[in-house]
Parts: sequence; structure tokens; C-alpha cells
Amino acid sequence: MDNFILNKENEIYYECGYSCDNAIYLQIGDEKYFITDGRYTLDALENAKAQVITTKTLLKTTREIILKKRVKTLIIDPLNWDYESFVSLHQVTHLTKQANYSHKKRIIKTPNELDIIKKAVKLGADAFEEFKNEIKIGDDEYELSYKFKEKLTNRGKRELSFEPIVAINQNSAKPHAVVSDNKLQKNDILLLDAGIKYKRYCSDRTRSIAINENLSMSKTQIFQNKEYQKIYDIVLQAQEKALNAIKVGMKISELDKIARDFITQAGYGKYFVHSLGHGVGLDIHELPYVNSTNDTIIQEGMVFTIEPGIYLPDKFGVRIEDMVCINYDSKVEIL
Amino acid sequence: MDNFILNKENEIYYECGYSCDNAIYLQIGDEKYFITDGRYTLDALENAKAQVITTKTLLKTTREIILKKRVKTLIIDPLNWDYESFVSLHQVTHLTKQANYSHKKRIIKTPNELDIIKKAVKLGADAFEEFKNEIKIGDDEYELSYKFKEKLTNRGKRELSFEPIVAINQNSAKPHAVVSDNKLQKNDILLLDAGIKYKRYCSDRTRSIAINENLSMSKTQIFQNKEYQKIYDIVLQAQEKALNAIKVGMKISELDKIARDFITQAGYGKYFVHSLGHGVGLDIHELPYVNSTNDTIIQEGMVFTIEPGIYLPDKFGVRIEDMVCINYDSKVEIL
Repeated sequence: MDNFILNKENEIYYECGYSCDNAIYLQIGDEKYFITDGRYTLDALENAKAQVITTKTLLKTTREIILKKRVKTLIIDPLNWDYESFVSLHQVTHLTKQANYSHKKRIIKTPNELDIIKKAVKLGADAFEEFKNEIKIGDDEYELSYKFKEKLTNRGKRELSFEPIVAINQNSAKPHAVVSDNKLQKNDILLLDAGIKYKRYCSDRTRSIAINENLSMSKTQIFQNKEYQKIYDIVLQAQEKALNAIKVGMKISELDKIARDFITQAGYGKYFVHSLGHGVGLDIHELPYVNSTNDTIIQEGMVFTIEPGIYLPDKFGVRIEDMVCINYDSKVEIL
Repeated sequence: MDNFILNKENEIYYECGYSCDNAIYLQIGDEKYFITDGRYTLDALENAKAQVITTKTLLKTTREIILKKRVKTLIIDPLNWDYESFVSLHQVTHLTKQANYSHKKRIIKTPNELDIIKKAVKLGADAFEEFKNEIKIGDDEYELSYKFKEKLTNRGKRELSFEPIVAINQNSAKPHAVVSDNKLQKNDILLLDAGIKYKRYCSDRTRSIAINENLSMSKTQIFQNKEYQKIYDIVLQAQEKALNAIKVGMKISELDKIARDFITQAGYGKYFVHSLGHGVGLDIHELPYVNSTNDTIIQEGMVFTIEPGIYLPDKFGVRIEDMVCINYDSKVEIL
């Protein structure tokens, strides 16, 4: 078994079923240590599948355990540790640097994780539907975002996966739009990108919807504005082509190519400015990244987004995003 | 002038008036570089008082500038940089490690910063008052927290300084309580700790209030429960003694001693489990820390909290917190 050390909440939670904002997790062979301060001792004892060590000086105590256990080598993710802490650990053992060590472990979800993620996606999708009834002409993006978050979090009882994107017309042309006082008008396009957490696992979804009498959160959208409709249809077809192509055994980069080639042939390649998608799990961005260079083979237990987009600067943008899971019978399920 | 490099949002904002979640700020003599990716170029050009460099590879571009400008030495905060990035910079110049480099610069606020902070505190205090009218018997902590945040953020138009603490009775005995489904009843004690951001500067305030017909967010509280009242009065007197003692030229550790000695003499020293306060500015926790070991001299331009507390495990807790600013006429102002 690997000896390894972690300091990120989700990475620690994945190993022992508990985490808090001040902890180090150390695994030496089959011995597991959860090192934290007194504020979290009781919760940790109740929830962490590991030996709980309480200390005011986490790093010092960790060093002492490493020395006492005569640890010869320890895997560490050099991207997760500040320079001082890394050097401090390096003084007491040999550190084996493995970038994305935890993310690599987590790329294949267990059946139980898939069930939790499906439930998260369901709750997230329900919130989109509930929000539909709250959308009012004249609302600005702040107000729309506020009401959207009320539904997404069930009035604060659930966490968001990330700060939602709520963007009208020109603002939707920015892939990472920030809410503004833009007011919603009839026949606008409204881009909504949001997710929630269920049992700490994330959902993620984007809809670009037509503002008219028949609001819908489905992917069938009828725009008054012909250019909106044209771009929307290209993005939707690009997404469908990628979704239909997914199968176990193929390189994930092929999916990006399928969507990108379609958008490029339609003449909008340079306006599809990001990669096709990303893995989702405890973190909102996980492996596998769905881009043109990632030749990871699609396997059972993977979960990722397919989210092509076209962004016409100062005009508008369209993005359509769904999560996909590869079930253990090799079936591809669009969540 | 110092050569230095920064990667934290508030630290960068302090130097050049703009920041975003993917940027490096490099200052070489009087040359200032804001290095970011294409998503932020336009906003940066408009707002950053620095030369804006757009790149997909921030660290690589930063290294190139360092080499081109033949930088001999660069101040860096080793706590802010991951090991890999630190080592990468170290390959191209001599790094001078200065922990808390930016925080140390920011310990003395300018008159303009003091004005912004006072406004933040005013808006935060107003939100406490507005929330008072929303508190209902039977609400659980989730619902109270949700309504409190509605007022604090003005329905999402302002940012919180931190996730508010909303804790009833036993839950208030935890200095860092997490909201639960505890329901509010008559004669309860309700601890509220929250702040908002105005022009990026934080406010911070705590009130422990009696739930009765005459809800008040002032520090005058009348509890039915005699033990609540006894502890409340001790904490309030401890705070008043510390507040009254503040003056330019004294060691800040003396304030902690004044409040702690009073609580200890009252027999509750071991239940005052944290330090007396902390500086506030762009970050919610800044220098100077108000604790028993910090011998920093109180000076004009400092802003910090005074927040004694007594926490009786499994029973209840009381904390009273106000921010204090030392004006440029040496007058101490309780905000």
C-alpha cells in the first residue's frame, strides 16, 4: 500500500469519510491518521475512519509521527502544499512528488458514488425547474441569481457546487460571466450554469433558454431572434453528436474533436473557446478533462460533462451542458 | 523599492486596484505587471494600475519577464505559493522569503481605507437591524441563517465577509458553530456573527441576543435565564474594559490581558478559548492579531476587533464583538 499525505478537504474525505478545514491525513501502510485541532476532535472521532490525533501544531505532530514510524517515502501532491510545509516534511522523509495523486485515484467512481452523483444531478435539475416559475421580466441578473440560488440550495440547506452563472444576452457571451444589473426582457437569451452538492458530490448543468411565454428548461428552445436560434441549434447538434459518440474504450479526446469539428464546419470554431468538458465528483472539476489532448480511455465509472459553447463577443453566447456517467454495464447514461 | 511577486487576490488588488482568480502580480522597481489569461484582459486593462500581460501560461511568462529584466532578487511569501511554483521561480532568480509580506504592508490603513471600512461596518450593522424583524419563534438555524444572509447581502448584491454563524443555545457554545435544525424558542440565546464586504473591505460583528418580545441588536440584553445573564454581563464588561483601554502607543497584547484577567477573575478563564481579536481589512483576518503574545504597538490607521467570549460546553456561549479603528487624530473609534 502507498504511504501518502493529504491536506485538501475533499481528498481527505475520500479516504476516511470525514474532513474539516484544518486537517492533515497521513496513511502509512494500512495505518490511517487524521490529524486536526481541538475544534474538530469530537466530530472526527465520530466520523473519520482513521486514528484521530488532536494537536495545536498539525505539521509538527505529523513530522513526529513520520519520524516515529520511520517512514522511508511518502507520496505528496506538490501542487497542494505551500513551499514551507513541503520543505518541513522533506526534512523528515523522502517525498515522492505525484501531481494530482488524489484526483487520479478518484477518476473511476464506485457504484455507490455513481448513485450519489445521479441524485445530485436530479436535485440540481429539479431546482432548474422550480426556478423557471420565479423568472420575471424586469428582474436583473442579481435578482435572478438570488432566486435561482434559493431553489438550488433549498433556502440554504444545500451547498452550491460553484457560484452560478446567470447571464443575459451580451453577458452570456462571456464564458465566465459575472452577474450585473442587466434586466431581463422578452425574447432575450438567458444562460444558466449551476450545480448543487448532495452528500458532498457535485452536479453541473447549463441551459441557454429563450425568454417567452413558454419558458422551458429542456433543450428544445424556440427563439424569436433568428441568430440566437441558428447558434443554439449548432451548439445543440454539437452536443448531441458528442453525447451519441460516447462509448467505453474510446479516447476521450475524440469527443472534443467531434463537437469541435462540427462547430468549426459551421463556421464558428474560433468562438468555441474552451474544452468540451470535465470530470465531476467531490470537486466540480475532476479528471477526466474532456479536451483535444487528453487520450485517456473512457471506462466504466467515469463521470464527466459535455458542454460545447459558442460565444459571439458583445452579442450573446450559448452553452448546453449535461453530465454523463458510464455505468458498470458499460451503458452511457446522460444524467 | 522592493521587487516582489504576489498571487493572492486581495494582495494583488491592494497593489493595483484590480484582481481576478487567475493572476500573478510582479513589481520590479517601479514597473508593475499584471499577468493574467484572456478571460480577464479587458477588465484588467480597464482597472489595473499596472501593465497587463495576457498569457495562457502565467508562471512561464512571469519567469520570462524576470529573466528579461535581470531581476537579482524577489520578495515572495512562501506560505502563498505551492512547492512547484516556488521552485520554478527559484530557478530564475534569488527569492527572499518574507512570510505575511502583504499583510504586514496592510496593517496601517490609509484614511480612505478607514472610510471604506466604516461604511462596511455601517452596512453590516444595518443588516443586523433589518434581520431583527425577520426572526420568528420556530425558525431553525438554517432558516434564520438564510434570512440573515438575505439582509446581509441585500439579496445577493453584496458579498459576505465569511459564512455567518447563527447558533442557538447549546450550539452557541461552539466558537465555530455550524448551522443545524435547532429551532428557536422563547427565552433562548441566539449568537449571530457576521460581516459583509463593501468595496472589497470586510466588516465583522457578533451579538448574543435574548429571544423575547423586545428583540434588540444593541449590547443591552435582558435574559430570563439567570445564568445567561450572568455570563453575558461578564463578557460585556470584559469587552468594555478592553475597549476603554485602547490607546495609541500601548502593546496590543495588553488588551487581551485586560479582558482575559477580568474573565479569569470571574471564574471563567478556561472558557475563553480564543484570542481577543484580529485585524480586519481586505481579508477578514489581518494583522494585528489581538492576543496575549503580540507586542505590536497600537498605531493610527489600525483596525481590529475586540471579541471576548465565554463558552460553556453543551450549555451555551456568549460572544460580543465590535470593530475598532484608530483614527489619524489618535482617537479610538468603536465602529
